[in-house]
Amino acid sequence: MLLSDVETPALICDLDRLTANLGRVAGFARNADLELRPHTKTHKTPEIAKLQLEHGASGITVAKIGEAEVMADAGIDDIFIAHHIVGADKVERLAKLAERAKVAVGVDSSEAAAALSMGSAQHGLRLRVLIEVDTGLRRCGVRPEDAPDLARAVSSLPGLALGGVFTYPGHVYDARNENEVAGIAAYECRIMGELGGKIAPLVEGPLRVSGGSTPTAPSYHPECGLTEIRPGTYVFNDRTQIDMWAARPAECALTVLSTVVSAPESGRVILDAGGKSLAADVARRSSGHGMLKEDGAAVIVKLNEEHGFLDLSQSELRLRLADKVEVIPNHACAVANLFDEMTVVKDGEVVDTWQIAARGKVQ
Amino acid sequence: MLLSDVETPALICDLDRLTANLGRVAGFARNADLELRPHTKTHKTPEIAKLQLEHGASGITVAKIGEAEVMADAGIDDIFIAHHIVGADKVERLAKLAERAKVAVGVDSSEAAAALSMGSAQHGLRLRVLIEVDTGLRRCGVRPEDAPDLARAVSSLPGLALGGVFTYPGHVYDARNENEVAGIAAYECRIMGELGGKIAPLVEGPLRVSGGSTPTAPSYHPECGLTEIRPGTYVFNDRTQIDMWAARPAECALTVLSTVVSAPESGRVILDAGGKSLAADVARRSSGHGMLKEDGAAVIVKLNEEHGFLDLSQSELRLRLADKVEVIPNHACAVANLFDEMTVVKDGEVVDTWQIAARGKVQ
Repeated sequence: MLLSDVETPALICDLDRLTANLGRVAGFARNADLELRPHTKTHKTPEIAKLQLEHGASGITVAKIGEAEVMADAGIDDIFIAHHIVGADKVERLAKLAERAKVAVGVDSSEAAAALSMGSAQHGLRLRVLIEVDTGLRRCGVRPEDAPDLARAVSSLPGLALGGVFTYPGHVYDARNENEVAGIAAYECRIMGELGGKIAPLVEGPLRVSGGSTPTAPSYHPECGLTEIRPGTYVFNDRTQIDMWAARPAECALTVLSTVVSAPESGRVILDAGGKSLAADVARRSSGHGMLKEDGAAVIVKLNEEHGFLDLSQSELRLRLADKVEVIPNHACAVANLFDEMTVVKDGEVVDTWQIAARGKVQ
Repeated sequence: MLLSDVETPALICDLDRLTANLGRVAGFARNADLELRPHTKTHKTPEIAKLQLEHGASGITVAKIGEAEVMADAGIDDIFIAHHIVGADKVERLAKLAERAKVAVGVDSSEAAAALSMGSAQHGLRLRVLIEVDTGLRRCGVRPEDAPDLARAVSSLPGLALGGVFTYPGHVYDARNENEVAGIAAYECRIMGELGGKIAPLVEGPLRVSGGSTPTAPSYHPECGLTEIRPGTYVFNDRTQIDMWAARPAECALTVLSTVVSAPESGRVILDAGGKSLAADVARRSSGHGMLKEDGAAVIVKLNEEHGFLDLSQSELRLRLADKVEVIPNHACAVANLFDEMTVVKDGEVVDTWQIAARGKVQ
């Protein structure tokens, strides 16, 4: 089947672009002597996680136990849950998962660590734990100066093995230029590298000092202080990554194929993709709800749930009823989370369909 | 099981509030002598669609053929697809659906009508068609002055039966006060009522003049010009409806139950519900990403995909690790579309779980 024959709206993954993205960021990690542990929340698709492992990833990252369970079901057995597992029901699920896969999890308080310890010890496990450090995002994580104390507390608890420290420099998305991106990565490396040195004597097995994101991925270098990075969006890229100087439009592998379902007047058409296909996320600097692959000057000025309002007044594009277009989303992770499957395309032909098996696994 | 024992994040539907909402808006329709054909895109859940029918709805509205198929599978047989069916694959699916349920569909161009006519006639059907009229939203729809010509064209085509006209006054969400809401409803009624009179001789069966939305639902009255309304969000309400003077917080039936997973410093905690549970939609006038049921002064200032940043600096609420809160979403329809199921609660006890069976049916 040709791409142009696919029923819309449909989530489209360009296989060549995906493969190139996998290779490029694996190269960044290799050149910087870092392990690559990509965040699979972007795609939630076991087939893509396996491609990441084939391209040299040492394991994967997930956000939720439910995502980890799906990936473990698919045979992936080295999983870092970069989130905080709170509540007896979740600790129980985590312990069960740890019995069948190599799992590590984040922690940022002695209270949460104590609950994890109890659940893990009850199952006779030694659960690997990484301490989350806040390097500027002000989300979760301890202050750098408090990390050594928490490391000592964790390492003294039964059922837990301290694996290292991790951070997410998500405030990079507020950076105003590439210098600020590099500066945020440099600060992250210095703080985390120093902490890694301090806690190393408490760590069981190889020390992990984990950081990174897609925008900062090109900024690392050998002996930068980290031992691994966890970029996510790089597999697809999106309009936000274009705005972050992290991707060119030709490196965007994920689009939403959409049909013109109404052409009420010249220069204005309505697409069958709205907020339930494109998500309401705004881009960092660009306006509009995604970017047409066919012409960046065409602007999706507004979304209703199942309608995209496409303004062609600044575009050369002439669209008629039933024409199809491909929209590069503002935020690929949010869009992949709306669809049950993605259509895989190579050279304009459909070559596969992948289930987004971990979609909706919010718990 | 108690609500407080439900694993998070979870979509919660308060059954008493839902039932009260169903009754209230059914009362608006009854008092205004209007048929009620609620838009089920809000909940995508057959159980709720059936409750709407039990509360006097004459049929249901959907946005996509995929939603209609799910509702027909559940035994609902009077369905209006308030969207434009464009493309041979979709016309074929529509024809197949029309063989097993009473289906009507929108049209806003003679080109789309011709394609529908051909597909319908090939199946030996007479498909009921309503002409969409633009009463100010500037989305789909013909200008009011062009509707009679399109009505004549439709009524002359084989395989089609003209059923009436419909509009969606979605620009009501730009209204700045309740007077403007009432004014938009009054204009809608006048324009549509006049058109209904003009096209009535061409209509087969009872004339349908269809309009409405949740914010305008209280504004209609007997002989206002419409014959039916299609509100959607009223089943749940949300923060946008509060902002639109259409609901009070105590009338919001849908929440996201969420756990505090990190409490990095006084006055600031992190929830396990982010954009993948609460959606990125912004409210009309209120700031923040949803409203805490426990305290409106607590503000979710930012969302990442799986994290909500909760600022308690203006709130009396003292939250600790593992505490749970309920968040009234900014946009209920977008949030219900993120979950696979909703937990139904009555008086703080879980009484049922409903599958959101039409979630993800974007085609």
